[in-house]
Amino acid sequence: MAGDGSDQRALQYEQTLMYGRYTQELGVYAKEEAARLRESGQRRSVSDRSRTLDLLEYDKGRCAKCRICTVRCQKFLISRVGEDWIFLILLGLLMALVSWVVDFCIAICLQAQKWMYGGLDSNVFLQYLAWVTYPVVLITFSAGFTQILAPQAVGSGIPEMKTILRGVVLKEYLTFKTFVAKVIGLTCALGSGMPLGKEGPFVHIASLCAALLSKFMSLFGGIYENESRNIEMLAAACAVGVGCCFAAPIGGVLFSIEVTSTFFAVRNYWRGFFAATFSAFIFRVLAVWNRDEETITALFKTRFRLDFPFDLQELPAFAVIGIASGFGGALFVYLNRLIVQFIRKQKAINRFLMKKRLLYPALVTLLVSTLTFPPGFGQFMAGKLTQKESLVTLLDNRTWAKQGIAEEFDYIGHSQAWKHPQVNVFVTLVLFIVMKFWMSALATTIPVPCGAFMPVFVIGAAFGRLVGESMAAWFPDGIHTDGTIYPIVPGGYAVVGAAALSGAVTHTVSTAVIVFELTGQISHILPVMIAVILANAVAQSLQPSLYDSIIRIKKLPYLPELGWGHHEKYNIRVEDIMVRDVRYITLNCCYRDLHNVLLTGHLKTLALVESAESMILLGSIERAQLQSLLSQQLGRPRRLEYIRERAVAEKKRLSVSSNQGSEDGSQRVSQEVRFQISTEESTFSPVRPATPKPLKPALKRASVVERPTEIPTSPHDNSGIALKNLFCASPDAEGLEDDRDVEDDMTLREIAEWEEMQLDEQVNFNNCKIDPAPFQLVERTSLHKTHTIFSLLGLDHAYVTSIGRLIGVVSLKELRKAIEGSVTVKGVKVRPPLASFRDSGTSSSENEATELHKLWDRHKSMSLPREHTPSESDEKSQ
Amino acid sequence: MAGDGSDQRALQYEQTLMYGRYTQELGVYAKEEAARLRESGQRRSVSDRSRTLDLLEYDKGRCAKCRICTVRCQKFLISRVGEDWIFLILLGLLMALVSWVVDFCIAICLQAQKWMYGGLDSNVFLQYLAWVTYPVVLITFSAGFTQILAPQAVGSGIPEMKTILRGVVLKEYLTFKTFVAKVIGLTCALGSGMPLGKEGPFVHIASLCAALLSKFMSLFGGIYENESRNIEMLAAACAVGVGCCFAAPIGGVLFSIEVTSTFFAVRNYWRGFFAATFSAFIFRVLAVWNRDEETITALFKTRFRLDFPFDLQELPAFAVIGIASGFGGALFVYLNRLIVQFIRKQKAINRFLMKKRLLYPALVTLLVSTLTFPPGFGQFMAGKLTQKESLVTLLDNRTWAKQGIAEEFDYIGHSQAWKHPQVNVFVTLVLFIVMKFWMSALATTIPVPCGAFMPVFVIGAAFGRLVGESMAAWFPDGIHTDGTIYPIVPGGYAVVGAAALSGAVTHTVSTAVIVFELTGQISHILPVMIAVILANAVAQSLQPSLYDSIIRIKKLPYLPELGWGHHEKYNIRVEDIMVRDVRYITLNCCYRDLHNVLLTGHLKTLALVESAESMILLGSIERAQLQSLLSQQLGRPRRLEYIRERAVAEKKRLSVSSNQGSEDGSQRVSQEVRFQISTEESTFSPVRPATPKPLKPALKRASVVERPTEIPTSPHDNSGIALKNLFCASPDAEGLEDDRDVEDDMTLREIAEWEEMQLDEQVNFNNCKIDPAPFQLVERTSLHKTHTIFSLLGLDHAYVTSIGRLIGVVSLKELRKAIEGSVTVKGVKVRPPLASFRDSGTSSSENEATELHKLWDRHKSMSLPREHTPSESDEKSQ
Repeated sequence: MAGDGSDQRALQYEQTLMYGRYTQELGVYAKEEAARLRESGQRRSVSDRSRTLDLLEYDKGRCAKCRICTVRCQKFLISRVGEDWIFLILLGLLMALVSWVVDFCIAICLQAQKWMYGGLDSNVFLQYLAWVTYPVVLITFSAGFTQILAPQAVGSGIPEMKTILRGVVLKEYLTFKTFVAKVIGLTCALGSGMPLGKEGPFVHIASLCAALLSKFMSLFGGIYENESRNIEMLAAACAVGVGCCFAAPIGGVLFSIEVTSTFFAVRNYWRGFFAATFSAFIFRVLAVWNRDEETITALFKTRFRLDFPFDLQELPAFAVIGIASGFGGALFVYLNRLIVQFIRKQKAINRFLMKKRLLYPALVTLLVSTLTFPPGFGQFMAGKLTQKESLVTLLDNRTWAKQGIAEEFDYIGHSQAWKHPQVNVFVTLVLFIVMKFWMSALATTIPVPCGAFMPVFVIGAAFGRLVGESMAAWFPDGIHTDGTIYPIVPGGYAVVGAAALSGAVTHTVSTAVIVFELTGQISHILPVMIAVILANAVAQSLQPSLYDSIIRIKKLPYLPELGWGHHEKYNIRVEDIMVRDVRYITLNCCYRDLHNVLLTGHLKTLALVESAESMILLGSIERAQLQSLLSQQLGRPRRLEYIRERAVAEKKRLSVSSNQGSEDGSQRVSQEVRFQISTEESTFSPVRPATPKPLKPALKRASVVERPTEIPTSPHDNSGIALKNLFCASPDAEGLEDDRDVEDDMTLREIAEWEEMQLDEQVNFNNCKIDPAPFQLVERTSLHKTHTIFSLLGLDHAYVTSIGRLIGVVSLKELRKAIEGSVTVKGVKVRPPLASFRDSGTSSSENEATELHKLWDRHKSMSLPREHTPSESDEKSQ
Repeated sequence: MAGDGSDQRALQYEQTLMYGRYTQELGVYAKEEAARLRESGQRRSVSDRSRTLDLLEYDKGRCAKCRICTVRCQKFLISRVGEDWIFLILLGLLMALVSWVVDFCIAICLQAQKWMYGGLDSNVFLQYLAWVTYPVVLITFSAGFTQILAPQAVGSGIPEMKTILRGVVLKEYLTFKTFVAKVIGLTCALGSGMPLGKEGPFVHIASLCAALLSKFMSLFGGIYENESRNIEMLAAACAVGVGCCFAAPIGGVLFSIEVTSTFFAVRNYWRGFFAATFSAFIFRVLAVWNRDEETITALFKTRFRLDFPFDLQELPAFAVIGIASGFGGALFVYLNRLIVQFIRKQKAINRFLMKKRLLYPALVTLLVSTLTFPPGFGQFMAGKLTQKESLVTLLDNRTWAKQGIAEEFDYIGHSQAWKHPQVNVFVTLVLFIVMKFWMSALATTIPVPCGAFMPVFVIGAAFGRLVGESMAAWFPDGIHTDGTIYPIVPGGYAVVGAAALSGAVTHTVSTAVIVFELTGQISHILPVMIAVILANAVAQSLQPSLYDSIIRIKKLPYLPELGWGHHEKYNIRVEDIMVRDVRYITLNCCYRDLHNVLLTGHLKTLALVESAESMILLGSIERAQLQSLLSQQLGRPRRLEYIRERAVAEKKRLSVSSNQGSEDGSQRVSQEVRFQISTEESTFSPVRPATPKPLKPALKRASVVERPTEIPTSPHDNSGIALKNLFCASPDAEGLEDDRDVEDDMTLREIAEWEEMQLDEQVNFNNCKIDPAPFQLVERTSLHKTHTIFSLLGLDHAYVTSIGRLIGVVSLKELRKAIEGSVTVKGVKVRPPLASFRDSGTSSSENEATELHKLWDRHKSMSLPREHTPSESDEKSQ
């Protein structure tokens, strides 16, 4: 078996190498060929060999020793191509380059806008036009481009990645088209200067990169086809995405784990670290290489004093930032969802926007950029600054508002944008926070590739700065009483605020690590941690995370977390939620049953039971397997074979009874007629097949009987009528390569008859992949346990068996319904870890599960011995 | 059901509050009583009520409003006691206090040694005696104390925690005794100044704390009894342990995840962060409060320059540190294991040491402290410095060896210990590294509570410093060529080295985060990450981690990781490894069967099947449940009841046939005699029971027939003979509270007869807890899938069923054997993530699983339809 596998792999390898052949130098190629020749010399054909030897001649001049050495190295390298770390290095490298190029383009875009705005300073109206038109054009282009190329590229991508890592296959989310759309769309969207982020999209881009790279490298080795390995690589890719976006490897790994995983395999841990570190390293090296930096440093380096970063008595202020950020974060998620729902509900608006898809982005951009126009309202909210500049100034280690001595403050760099001649710096900050808050919530609803992390981060920093400046104004000489004066550092507050607000919106603690890596200083670790945890506690008890909220809005197939302390979870059993009407096939079924089952079910796999009476579960078969079984049975090759056999039988009969000439002659004529009909029927206008009766039973339970695909229109349509009903987009090219030695001379009626005959045959499962160990639950498995198992193993469905007999099936859908039905659904509540804050005082838990309890109570009176106190015992056994 | 549960809980609460009653003020108590009265007024008995009302009188003077408010607060608080965050705060607080007190005591111990050593500077011999005796006494005390109180407290504790978190119950590892032994033993061990660490033990101590706290708090609420919750809390406790040890909350969480978990539930993430942050915060606040620090800062604060922490061209040096540390780490693990195995193998030494258990610690301590004696060899290896002082000096941001200008170096603080008048600082460093390396590996084998993290960390720092100093000597003006001179910072190299070596020994990446938190600077993030990852890659491909190595040495029940790329894992099936001879009980079995099964099996749970013929699996029952069933059946209460019934029947018979006087009289006499025998038999010398025959069948399959416990020696021994065989340490006090209205007048023979009768009755499972959904596998489940499921769900065993019929059982043992049998066992290899480095060139994978392949091939020819290419299909379905 193993030998076969390696042969097959070698073959595949040989086939696929052809693609990359002419991109290499001929000499290298010759050496490769030599190496391959040595390995698989016996199996090669003579013609191949002579060609290779010709090429080897080319290499004759070099010394033989060196060549052997090279060959060995080559061999070694090729054997290493399949290694994870090579994949991870490539991924890191690629993503660092992408990140850097995107950043570079965004910087150019933003500079161009500034340059235009600066050049037109003679006329305010022209200035306004330039300031507004530029982002509107970019955003509209981004929205249009994404819409046309790959609508899947819209938005953050983290919710989708969360769903994909859960094991759900989302179509088209990991294609090259999406990659292009996402990268270009993101660059344009961020280049417009709107309050959008690049983090979420980068998680998606990195995953795209990993998927494409994996596909590319599977051309070289076999292990890239393993699905679980792909999931592992996607998890690493998410870490790379965050890591190369912020040059924050550790934070990237942790953040990606927190936002995308439910259960994390520690054995994958190093992958994320490895790839993210490499990526962040290359990303920063590129900056050094481009002379932006002298050496590798943090992205937003701060220079707070090390000796006495903060006083213990400042901690309450940090805690206040944390709690306020918690409420702010929840509000942001709520606002974001409100906007989406508002636009969806207003049908008139919705219909209009649906028609003019690009109008909504343009309008939003117009509104936002009008308000930030620097000579206009923008002067009161530092509208001139880009997101990056805002952040740099907010993290500044100087104090802006020294009471009384505000004049001494020297306006260097961008910091002056915060200081308006007439208006206090506090007013500017407050305006900035308020305006940016709703602007960001609004802007993230635009259908372009964009994230919300960075805008929220900046708002948080501004809020922290506001508190910090207030503290500095309140205690001009610092709080410490023991002689030495340690003035308060508002920049430190900005760091705390940024971590807290972004943590609250995303429901993560790792934003704390991200800020340390972004600022290059860890001195504020305890304030940051305290604020982030408080913010999380508050935000999690009020709203789901932004990503979970989007999952809900987009109705992605995701399993919500179980609520806490809902003890009825232990009392709900699988038997209460399972679907009892399971689609199954029996071991001795005929193809007609297969056909019927395939037309009705919706699950990806079907249960295989011993017989309809015993219902003993033997395994599960994928739908695709059954479809191919059916298509084999009803396909053109088989029919041609049948015709051939019939012809042979005919001939034999003819040779035996050659004296019956008259009959034979008439039959031959009829055959010829049949042949004519079958070839010319394609030119006919669509005609209902003449034999609806035999088809009917085959489609008994289906609601799709009246589908137009049923009607043959293409020349190959006679390759199967019943089959057509199954494959709407059937492989039309299938019949083309058939051996043409037998002529397909059957009429539609004959085909139908033949198919009827075929359908009555018993299914031969010999060439069919059967999963012999599908996941089984027992009817009394608790909901809690079921949920854990589903999320741990990433199951899509599980069969419920009772002493071996299949009695039901539970899929994600039922589970989700059961969970949502029992958790108090009040607005959107997906993940309430600190749910106790919310549930205090209410005793809703008893009413919710009444229906299920009834069911359960009914079963309690069964004859089998059971646990004496179900709730207690389950608590212990869990 | 839910109502019943809360009632029960309230009852429990009421009972348990009694313990804490008199520690509260009487007024507070009265208020509590009032609150309780309001809640459960109806259910109280009159006598209770009057007493409470008396107490309420005491509180009359205060205003009613205030009282109501207090009552409400009280109610609220009590309802909150069960919350996780209260538990975590308590845990954090407790651990911070423990950590601080331990640190404080260690500091005092070390100071005392220094003071003694310093005071005796007139006589070198006396000095030596003081220097050596002190640690020997402390270590010997620590070893003896631990040995006597709780031998489980020996060693690091991380391997044990890893095993416990895996779901295995290790006896006595989480008791109060162990806690005391660990804390006191650790303090003494570290106070001796030996190269030992406190990290590992602190993980254990925190877990102990959590377990004890959980037990304590379960007195108040119900949820503390949930087992899965306990596991979650233990995971959080591990984070707290590391966090409060180093004041490193983030690193603590990550490190604890890496060293203790296989799969990590992200929903528990915040728990660790919350508790560890709180703990680290309190730990550092205690230092501020104690005037050690001005404000909250890092433990080993560094002061490297921020602008230009390192040059890009220094990166190769960092990479070299990483790779060398990888080899060093592997060597350390190897050395440590070698020492243990050497001592185990040398039987003469071993026997001697077994007798004098305290000799080995004393000898090792004597050797180590002799070598570090400062006026002796210690002067060449900075022997004067404690571990903490060494680390502080190694992380110093000044350069020690400026070529040529070494004289200018001002000797402040402890740094001068590194500078010997005759010897170069390089020599000192090399000697320090070499000596400390083997000393640490040796010292960690001493049977005292101790960890290896800190010693390794210090050695790594010294190694980094060595490289850094060399670089500084090599490039006195720094490497950077663009005008400005940025001299090399050897302290940065020390940070990198520390992280790399400790990462290599423990196989973790999170040591990087720990060093940032320890030093309070994150500027060297990229070098540290690169070095740590390289060190991990090298070390993981050479040796298991220190903890896995200890797990192997101690033979703890832990499931090793699956190797990589071993595709035969997909071909080995459960049917190849399962135990086919399953111990089971049938639904209609009698107590004798129960008894027999209990005597033979070893698993914690037993399968319950419908009947021996059908073998249909119905569920599993815990061994303890069955034992209690049996003890109920054979117990004294039941026997007394039997006697009572018999007496009643006798009486009836007497009243009916009162004329048969003579017979009755003789019977009464015999009864009296029996009575005398049964009460006085305790004074007899041990006598074999006169009825060995009826006992024999009950013990048919047992090898324990000849156990001395069989012989009745105590007055209560007649409470059950067959039962005694089951419970070696049976609850002797059981029969004491029995109702004394019936006199136990049965002879041993009668008891045995009665027991025989009882054993033949059919088992009544009604009061027995049955797990209706034990984990089931199918015979063709692959080893890979089985391993994943076992480690994900923390299973101990799983039943193998074939169409509902129980055909086998797989426990951890079989799984471990199967894995170890197929992975090339060469030395100890537990977890080879980068195993490719090792396996290159060998194609052993095909030979290893021959036996299993044969088995599998045999099954391949079965009649059921199967997958067409097993290896390929499984790869896809996985």
